[in-house]
Amino acid sequence: MSLQPALYLLPVSLSNAPIENVLPALNISILRELRVFIVENLRTARRFLREAIPGFDIDGSQFFELNNHTDPAAISSFLEPLRNGIPTGVMSEAGCPGVADPGAQVIEIAQRENLKVIPLVGPSSILMALMGSGFNGQHFCFHGYLPVKEPDKARTLRDLEAESARKDMTQIFIETPYRNNKTIELMSRTLRDRTLVCVASELTDPEKEQIITLPASAWRRKKYDFDKHPTIFLLHAR
Amino acid sequence: MSLQPALYLLPVSLSNAPIENVLPALNISILRELRVFIVENLRTARRFLREAIPGFDIDGSQFFELNNHTDPAAISSFLEPLRNGIPTGVMSEAGCPGVADPGAQVIEIAQRENLKVIPLVGPSSILMALMGSGFNGQHFCFHGYLPVKEPDKARTLRDLEAESARKDMTQIFIETPYRNNKTIELMSRTLRDRTLVCVASELTDPEKEQIITLPASAWRRKKYDFDKHPTIFLLHAR
Repeated sequence: MSLQPALYLLPVSLSNAPIENVLPALNISILRELRVFIVENLRTARRFLREAIPGFDIDGSQFFELNNHTDPAAISSFLEPLRNGIPTGVMSEAGCPGVADPGAQVIEIAQRENLKVIPLVGPSSILMALMGSGFNGQHFCFHGYLPVKEPDKARTLRDLEAESARKDMTQIFIETPYRNNKTIELMSRTLRDRTLVCVASELTDPEKEQIITLPASAWRRKKYDFDKHPTIFLLHAR
Repeated sequence: MSLQPALYLLPVSLSNAPIENVLPALNISILRELRVFIVENLRTARRFLREAIPGFDIDGSQFFELNNHTDPAAISSFLEPLRNGIPTGVMSEAGCPGVADPGAQVIEIAQRENLKVIPLVGPSSILMALMGSGFNGQHFCFHGYLPVKEPDKARTLRDLEAESARKDMTQIFIETPYRNNKTIELMSRTLRDRTLVCVASELTDPEKEQIITLPASAWRRKKYDFDKHPTIFLLHAR
């Protein structure tokens, strides 16, 4: 296989599930050919490559790190190999690059310069949570992180709930994992009894995955512990 | 492999790309074991199964059709096999079930009855378009179809643009394929010059895929023909 020069957007695993559970074979054949990578986290990218392709030539590969510590002025230079015709991969720390990660910045530059961008199939916790929730998938919104402070977060939750009821839409957000339980607790006492809350945790993990949809009132009584487990939150008000 | 009883949410191809380009091997092993399916379209589901697994026992399988013509009162009965411990698959006409298709209705019932729901990885045109656009993936909203009539659609486009600028968010929507060109034309003269418009067409197709991001003003001058090609539209205003 000789790869056409393009920016390949390569999803990576969300869990310890075997690679063949979550990535199409095509992704592995493309990874095998790549020697230039723009990655959110150097260490996890290398670990992923070693796991996906035993014996992968890490030392013969070039890595650019693109995350919140990257100098914005440097990002464009990461595309220099691609400008010279060398296929380049983009990898997030988990899931799909360009979605809830800093990767979009380099994809934006590639688009501006008319460089070919090829997204590949892979696990997205946002999308899989939406699928599993049973909520409206014809109209949904992902908000990233909510405000950290509790009064602000409670107000935002009520705003999202009101908008969900008004527009029949699904609201999706994330939380830093050590605050998951507190966030569920806050939702259960802030939202209306009948508003449905879905908690989707450890997606794609064959043992630990949980996708639970219950009315806010039922979460109030339920026992749970999602702290430190990667989790997506969804709500749908009626 | 003996499959645990669950509702398996099985993505299907978006294009004529080989199955191994877009589905993990796990999906095929699960499909192989299933004999009960809830599908959006009987004919395309059977064709997909035959293609994914040559020799698949279509005649020995049970299919329930769930689409806009299905009697809502009948949907719950589709879960009768699963209630009796028989693993059941859900398949959309294209892409991921539960997202922009009627599948969410049966997933909602499964969640209400505490039946296990397991989403699998596969191609989602919404997500792949978002990845490839270079737009903000930390905050995005999918709106399904916009209003059909041109004045309403133009007003909605301006509202989405204003919200996108105000909240720094990506707006995503779809259109019936024979109206794609008209919609781009409408966007190019309705939106502000600098607003970025991404048109993502024939996703996952090795030959026909196109993901093009340009300012509205550049779409005004560009030649294109996306009519009858499955396409996702995205906009981001600054």
